[in-house]
Amino acid sequence: MIIVLNKDATEAQIQHIIERTEKLGLKAHISRGMERTIIGFIGAEDALRMIPLEVFPGVENVMPVLAPYKLVSREFKKDDSLIKLDSKATMGGKKLVVMAGPCSVENHDGLLSVAKKIKAAGASVLRAGAFKPRTSPYDFQGLGEEGLKILHSVGKEIGLATITEVMDPRQVELVGRYADIFQIGARNMQNFSLLREIGQTRKPVLLKRGLSATIKDLLMSAEYILSEGNFEVMLCERGIRTFETATRNTLDINAIGVVKKLSHLPIVVDPSHGTGSWGLVPSGARAAVAAGCDGIMVEVHDNPEEALSDGAQSLKPDKFASLMEELKAIAKAIGREI
Amino acid sequence: MIIVLNKDATEAQIQHIIERTEKLGLKAHISRGMERTIIGFIGAEDALRMIPLEVFPGVENVMPVLAPYKLVSREFKKDDSLIKLDSKATMGGKKLVVMAGPCSVENHDGLLSVAKKIKAAGASVLRAGAFKPRTSPYDFQGLGEEGLKILHSVGKEIGLATITEVMDPRQVELVGRYADIFQIGARNMQNFSLLREIGQTRKPVLLKRGLSATIKDLLMSAEYILSEGNFEVMLCERGIRTFETATRNTLDINAIGVVKKLSHLPIVVDPSHGTGSWGLVPSGARAAVAAGCDGIMVEVHDNPEEALSDGAQSLKPDKFASLMEELKAIAKAIGREI
Amino acid sequence: MIIVLNKDATEAQIQHIIERTEKLGLKAHISRGMERTIIGFIGAEDALRMIPLEVFPGVENVMPVLAPYKLVSREFKKDDSLIKLDSKATMGGKKLVVMAGPCSVENHDGLLSVAKKIKAAGASVLRAGAFKPRTSPYDFQGLGEEGLKILHSVGKEIGLATITEVMDPRQVELVGRYADIFQIGARNMQNFSLLREIGQTRKPVLLKRGLSATIKDLLMSAEYILSEGNFEVMLCERGIRTFETATRNTLDINAIGVVKKLSHLPIVVDPSHGTGSWGLVPSGARAAVAAGCDGIMVEVHDNPEEALSDGAQSLKPDKFASLMEELKAIAKAIGREI
Amino acid sequence: MIIVLNKDATEAQIQHIIERTEKLGLKAHISRGMERTIIGFIGAEDALRMIPLEVFPGVENVMPVLAPYKLVSREFKKDDSLIKLDSKATMGGKKLVVMAGPCSVENHDGLLSVAKKIKAAGASVLRAGAFKPRTSPYDFQGLGEEGLKILHSVGKEIGLATITEVMDPRQVELVGRYADIFQIGARNMQNFSLLREIGQTRKPVLLKRGLSATIKDLLMSAEYILSEGNFEVMLCERGIRTFETATRNTLDINAIGVVKKLSHLPIVVDPSHGTGSWGLVPSGARAAVAAGCDGIMVEVHDNPEEALSDGAQSLKPDKFASLMEELKAIAKAIGREI
Repeated sequence: MIIVLNKDATEAQIQHIIERTEKLGLKAHISRGMERTIIGFIGAEDALRMIPLEVFPGVENVMPVLAPYKLVSREFKKDDSLIKLDSKATMGGKKLVVMAGPCSVENHDGLLSVAKKIKAAGASVLRAGAFKPRTSPYDFQGLGEEGLKILHSVGKEIGLATITEVMDPRQVELVGRYADIFQIGARNMQNFSLLREIGQTRKPVLLKRGLSATIKDLLMSAEYILSEGNFEVMLCERGIRTFETATRNTLDINAIGVVKKLSHLPIVVDPSHGTGSWGLVPSGARAAVAAGCDGIMVEVHDNPEEALSDGAQSLKPDKFASLMEELKAIAKAIGREI
Repeated sequence: MIIVLNKDATEAQIQHIIERTEKLGLKAHISRGMERTIIGFIGAEDALRMIPLEVFPGVENVMPVLAPYKLVSREFKKDDSLIKLDSKATMGGKKLVVMAGPCSVENHDGLLSVAKKIKAAGASVLRAGAFKPRTSPYDFQGLGEEGLKILHSVGKEIGLATITEVMDPRQVELVGRYADIFQIGARNMQNFSLLREIGQTRKPVLLKRGLSATIKDLLMSAEYILSEGNFEVMLCERGIRTFETATRNTLDINAIGVVKKLSHLPIVVDPSHGTGSWGLVPSGARAAVAAGCDGIMVEVHDNPEEALSDGAQSLKPDKFASLMEELKAIAKAIGREI
Repeated sequence: MIIVLNKDATEAQIQHIIERTEKLGLKAHISRGMERTIIGFIGAEDALRMIPLEVFPGVENVMPVLAPYKLVSREFKKDDSLIKLDSKATMGGKKLVVMAGPCSVENHDGLLSVAKKIKAAGASVLRAGAFKPRTSPYDFQGLGEEGLKILHSVGKEIGLATITEVMDPRQVELVGRYADIFQIGARNMQNFSLLREIGQTRKPVLLKRGLSATIKDLLMSAEYILSEGNFEVMLCERGIRTFETATRNTLDINAIGVVKKLSHLPIVVDPSHGTGSWGLVPSGARAAVAAGCDGIMVEVHDNPEEALSDGAQSLKPDKFASLMEELKAIAKAIGREI
Repeated sequence: MIIVLNKDATEAQIQHIIERTEKLGLKAHISRGMERTIIGFIGAEDALRMIPLEVFPGVENVMPVLAPYKLVSREFKKDDSLIKLDSKATMGGKKLVVMAGPCSVENHDGLLSVAKKIKAAGASVLRAGAFKPRTSPYDFQGLGEEGLKILHSVGKEIGLATITEVMDPRQVELVGRYADIFQIGARNMQNFSLLREIGQTRKPVLLKRGLSATIKDLLMSAEYILSEGNFEVMLCERGIRTFETATRNTLDINAIGVVKKLSHLPIVVDPSHGTGSWGLVPSGARAAVAAGCDGIMVEVHDNPEEALSDGAQSLKPDKFASLMEELKAIAKAIGREI
């Protein structure tokens, strides 16, 4: 931590800061420049984070030197983490993982039909929601446990790992009984009770970035899960909220490179939410693979017109299949595979 | 709902849309202009919201006519809602309600000391957190039930209503036992499980706007609570996330007027989070009162340097007291009182 | 300037950085912490700003210590600047200045009618555009020099100082001939050619904040004008672009306090653009005065339905007059006057 | 244009709106629903755009049906526009165009050295600034005409088309004398005087998206140029300003698909500004090509440590060359070429 003092900070103010921080076991290192005096601290920066240094008289600016996350950082673990999803699929290696399926579980036959097609096209994880976080209380809220059962049985039947959203700490046990991978949605990225509860399981979890979460915020939320002992975390870029209204969200393609630099965790991209419109999903998916993500998650529905949720951003299976061909070629172009 | 068709939409496409919507009991009303054909629907717009009209062939644009919220709307209830907080304080009338106190309950004596001072200055609700949503898992997370007990006892002793945050649907019963008013934090504004659980109580609740929530999103989250039967909802503007980095958040002062127009619910402003810096809290509070809010919520701490959370944005009691004098004068200038 | 080095930065890398910076006459000050080595520089930070230190091998992070602006800073000049607008009006003192008038000059009689009414209500500057920056090339672009003549003659006749926008460096001389105050619009805040040209005049100028300009950016643009010798600069907060769509812009009320802290220049608020809707203008104006601005600028039109531009955000004269009464009372409540 | 009326709009209000709009030659089409009455207008929507319908009593909401741009729209011209840059390079066809070079012209030998290398790697346009829009008046502002001369002579010598920024309408003639392509920078996207002046030339122009410009705003600015008769316009996505601070800008990869849908103009991506950091440029460039852009613009410098501007985001020539190999493979994967 570095403190920049006001131009007219007094010696008494400097002394007061030093006394307060030395109580925490830190050693202050003062540097008097022409324009400003600066104090650097040697020792555990975490201790300092607890003190609101900004309010100490004489302080102009406080600048942290270290990132506030530990376990998720590339510094903590140099090599990319590999997350084993089931006996066949592993996220984080040379081979990308494709997750696909409808927004919601609607019924057994519909899900089965989509599952077969996405598997044939090369996906290895089936996604579908049973508990749906909807902006309106009057919208379809998902089939609940019934939906989980359908997802589980279809996954088993077709041979696909399954992922589904968990919204409530009270549902963790239930969802964990049926699904292979937990999904934490964007709106719950900072639902800390849920993060802790998931952290106490040992199942893989996909943590989606919140609509207005910085990449640092996303990493801090992942840190909650790892700090409870669950290291099987995959991050997911799914678009952020900006002033642009031509698309539902702005897919932050830069996030891939930034996450790769800062963290050892795999990064997945969801171009369905990242664009909000099926016509833009293929270009978003291609961009994500080209930029170097470890997996993608795409909404696919046999008949988007009849989808109970997110129809507007769902691809039909044939469009998904031809997208997969493009993605394979792009992955190859950059030395990866799908 | 109005649908604008593509310039080259075919008759078959139009027919397909009409058939699909007539099944829902809606009557289509076609208007063929020079440049575009438009379809308006007469009947319950809610039914249409469930269908992804954007994906129907021939559709260029879908424009909702009605707001998606009902119970929270000014149209549903013309008069301002009055929320009774305790025997002395009511939110939503001519008299503004001031909520103040430390970010967190830290100990009994500290809270008692602040409570006396804020009451003397004119506040009628004591705020303090027992469960704290912290970005980092390593930060102080609140005293939990012990904190609730302290808050309760101090509130009783001094004669102030109490408000505290509830983060988890499993804590609703516990928090409700000790506090007079629930607070739902910005990060939980779309924690729909929590909203429903609070909706099933009959206690007043302050619902804070999410960092990237539009005013419409905020109203939809309030709708969740009202739709469960709890009409005692107060909205809270606490700053949104923008590109500006000079302040922690951007206090959206326009939200006051917009909420007043669209909804009958009271609107509170939190200038502490809305600015993130104690030096800006007074100007933010004055602006909020002048703009017409129904209440304000301010962080006050005897010794911000030692605060376990949010010290940087806490006012000292004497600054709070002089702010209150300014606020009283401003309220009077616009025909209200504090 | 402070440089934080990578955990594994080598001695050779450190040496390379020091050699490069010593050439610029700076003295490096190395501090080796447990986790990171930090280099602070003593000497003129401006020189360092020219070098892309981020690209030097071993550098993790570069943190400036000083603000990049000089002449506009509170550090350069402790006391508030007073800008004399004409023989009667001065901006920046205890008395606030109110600027009002139609968006565009439309004709002589219309402007004269509005001018009389705003003067009677207490405004001291007449605003109206002759050159209009319109998003669409097909919209009304202003009357040009004819408009300037009308503005000038009405200002003289009624006894009001006049302000009007200048969009093009080639118009500076022309506009300066007719108007008392230059206005630089939000879209031209970083039109550096225009800033320099205005900087070479000695007339007061109102510089509007760009839609996505940080407060620092705004100050840097003002620095362009001051650095050419024109110190008669007033800043203007007029709303920024955010994700919120309920209002045309988000009025950043915090900007008032931030500017007052960082700079000696006066700050004006434009609640017409800051809200985009006449119904919200009064609450925005009241908030601005309560927050401590030095002036406001309000669009007023006799018949907004017929306005050639910005009708939606224009107040009628009687609404403006009653707003002025509220503003006077609020100004008094905080020890100022209008 | 469609007007939604208030629930309690009166017949007199409706009549007033109809009379006003019929004067403009539009025919109103009234549809009375259960909840709202709606008025649709048949005839030239442009006329209506001039009236602030929002302020008419009884009006709740105004919804435009048509896009406000004409000449730039896909509706006006179905086929992709091809922009001929010089005898060898054309933008908008199957073959992508790569523009590369240093941020600024610094001297002849440096530019010549870079030009040779980028040409060898496959670029066909040399970029370098002679007039630089800098946030600070104290930063390097470019070599001016001297820079233009160097750019021109190096372009001729090596056989590359040249592009350089023009910031001021008074420079258009001068810049046009030396460069093959005009560049309008992000900060000047709504410098309407400059747009008009460029519109009166017949040279190709690259129009960069403003930091907070929606895609619609970008198209409207292009419309200014086309409306003056210059159809040789290329759009450029270069990152937008959002809340994310880990990168200088957020590269809006979705913009490529949106522009392709709405307009016939080619779209170029600038990953250097779009990321702000050389380490992220390759992933951004790969994403852009995969998403379907028509060209990219990349900053390349022999020695970024010594660059007079934008060193932090400049690639070294060897990194650029290996990026080009990846881009060729990706282009091939999606049926294009570089």
